[in-house]
Amino acid sequence: MNFKELASEYKTPLYVYDLDYMSKQYQELKEAFRGRKSILAYAVKANSNLSVVKHFANLGSGADCVSIGEVRRAFLAGIPAYKIIFSGVGKSDDEIREAIEKDILYINVESEAELFRVAIIAKELNKISRISIRVNPNIDPQTHPYISTGLHDNKFGVDINTAKRMYIFSKNSDSLDPVGVHFHIGSQLTNLEPIYESAVIVADLVRSLEAIDIELKFFDIGGGLGITYDDEATIKPYDYAQAILGTLKGLDLTVICEPGRFLTANAGYFLTKVLYEKQNGAKKFVVVDGAMNDLLRPALYGAYHRIEAITDSASEPRTVDIVGPVCESGDFFAKDYLLPELNHNDLLVVHSAGAYGFGMGSNYNTRGRSAEVAVEKGQARLIRKRENFEDLIALEKEFLEN
Amino acid sequence: MNFKELASEYKTPLYVYDLDYMSKQYQELKEAFRGRKSILAYAVKANSNLSVVKHFANLGSGADCVSIGEVRRAFLAGIPAYKIIFSGVGKSDDEIREAIEKDILYINVESEAELFRVAIIAKELNKISRISIRVNPNIDPQTHPYISTGLHDNKFGVDINTAKRMYIFSKNSDSLDPVGVHFHIGSQLTNLEPIYESAVIVADLVRSLEAIDIELKFFDIGGGLGITYDDEATIKPYDYAQAILGTLKGLDLTVICEPGRFLTANAGYFLTKVLYEKQNGAKKFVVVDGAMNDLLRPALYGAYHRIEAITDSASEPRTVDIVGPVCESGDFFAKDYLLPELNHNDLLVVHSAGAYGFGMGSNYNTRGRSAEVAVEKGQARLIRKRENFEDLIALEKEFLEN
Repeated sequence: MNFKELASEYKTPLYVYDLDYMSKQYQELKEAFRGRKSILAYAVKANSNLSVVKHFANLGSGADCVSIGEVRRAFLAGIPAYKIIFSGVGKSDDEIREAIEKDILYINVESEAELFRVAIIAKELNKISRISIRVNPNIDPQTHPYISTGLHDNKFGVDINTAKRMYIFSKNSDSLDPVGVHFHIGSQLTNLEPIYESAVIVADLVRSLEAIDIELKFFDIGGGLGITYDDEATIKPYDYAQAILGTLKGLDLTVICEPGRFLTANAGYFLTKVLYEKQNGAKKFVVVDGAMNDLLRPALYGAYHRIEAITDSASEPRTVDIVGPVCESGDFFAKDYLLPELNHNDLLVVHSAGAYGFGMGSNYNTRGRSAEVAVEKGQARLIRKRENFEDLIALEKEFLEN
Repeated sequence: MNFKELASEYKTPLYVYDLDYMSKQYQELKEAFRGRKSILAYAVKANSNLSVVKHFANLGSGADCVSIGEVRRAFLAGIPAYKIIFSGVGKSDDEIREAIEKDILYINVESEAELFRVAIIAKELNKISRISIRVNPNIDPQTHPYISTGLHDNKFGVDINTAKRMYIFSKNSDSLDPVGVHFHIGSQLTNLEPIYESAVIVADLVRSLEAIDIELKFFDIGGGLGITYDDEATIKPYDYAQAILGTLKGLDLTVICEPGRFLTANAGYFLTKVLYEKQNGAKKFVVVDGAMNDLLRPALYGAYHRIEAITDSASEPRTVDIVGPVCESGDFFAKDYLLPELNHNDLLVVHSAGAYGFGMGSNYNTRGRSAEVAVEKGQARLIRKRENFEDLIALEKEFLEN
């Protein structure tokens, strides 16, 4: 990947995605599940650029969506309706209506109250809505609290007993068709045990539903496979699949897996240029042209990203904070990081930026969002234009004269 | 403020701003400085909607900007060039060039390296650039670490000795005109003492510069005046002004104050509708249609916002978490908050949302940003349209076919 050339052609700050790496990750995970019918449903929230979603569509991927906007992206990118899932704790009536009308694979229901809304809306539309229920197995995933989702004090899913009640309600409803069960205990998981334990609990639920003639077709294991940002040991796709499949003995279910970060994080790079170095007291700062509005993870989660300097500098590495132009002390990419002395316009490459990078971007401080570039078989192409000032004010300019 | 009517007319999630409250805050602060020449330069980053900036322009306000995008907003909103300041640690060459060409009041320089760039660029343009230097007085402001900016281990400003060196360099440069000094030790300050101490240090610097024939015109005290989110006792504008003015005896300086949050935070309301209630284990959740992509402060800072329910419910208050539809456990507005039992479509009003609300908004989870509405003398009007799906994909759609 010639970062210098990319930065020179497309300017900085810039997101660059290696589509071939995404393919490799997709194939490895798909291959791990080959013993069963399976669908990999790409978690669109990880990186929702239309061209990225289309890339997965071309590989045969489905889509796990958490808003009707993501469902529309999936359709636009060419993912067939029968591979699209709509999840999330807060679906509005309009979203539910559109999902039912679009006849997607199923709506992943996260509460009893939501199930009742789905039933009402499906009835109004004179349709039968396929649903899955997200079960909260109450297992600690051992990850960051903000991306941990499988404990009872998280907002996600319902407990096993509530789920049973909801399946029975669905079975008896003439506007609902319960086809799947879903669990997802958290993101960036690096420990297989909690996933396995959850799968055991949920597979038992499937068996107890069979006993009362509720036959599910889809066992949706969510996503959450961790990746290496720093030196994390990760779960091997083969071990992951074996652990899951081992819990499904005697069950005829299609496995649905919803990888997002696993497919895209390490395929992505955030390129940013050095503006200045400065010394404040004992602290050395490298000020770059990218900021927290471009990549929020360090500010929001204290996330670590490996950072590589592309420079002619031959100096010894020094300890620096790498910070952006936004007027907050939380605007940093790394603290106490080792980098050589840098010059104006030297390039920094922030690694593992392909997931939850651009998608969490904002216009804070009236900064336009970066361009996005895809690289495939050595060829780079723009997949999203850089936002300019006119884009930022487009929806408010006309009201200025009032 | 008839929130129910506003929600029904403009839909939710929605930002509503009380422009009359903003005027009142502006007048109170302006009045506090009446003993001196002063400019209130509105900190555009707090709420950068063009109609809000224009409202302050109409009141006679200047603008404190932290990107060239904010400078352009200030111009579009009608703030005159001689009241516009450009601050920030990471100004790019293009931004510096445009600021000089636009002949704004001054560029607030935050490092030696930046000063050299400004000198070079001004020379190239054959102009003299007015500058101010941001001094870091190394005083602990006793606020949240992310919005604390006046300690040496923060990225902002330069220490007193560096500042002196920079003033001398500027005085000797034929492309720089040092006209001001700036300090800003943090945001949401509720304690006057650190501000006063900083002003003493910076006023001493001004005197020592006078002694070597560097005569400044502007004493820029930044912003940072705290507001009441919960039960914080705040600094009275009068006391604030008196403390500052007390440090300036014998100095002929125009005071520049850069309020943002103080002018807008408590003028703003975020309206969101209840989608569902759900019980997970011992936890009760109220799921609403607004999310962290609309209002990031709770997730990013653990910030408190008062939340008011508009409901016919007559139930006793219960302890709930108020959460949004985004697929992160960090997506919450309040935890362990007392609210009565709520119904589908009941309205919640999130208070103190006028600053660092909409401006930090994103499209995370492919959610369009809220509309913004201004209320003035009892009349409501739209000041920014709700983002729709087409807006979200406008810059990437054309690349889908590649």
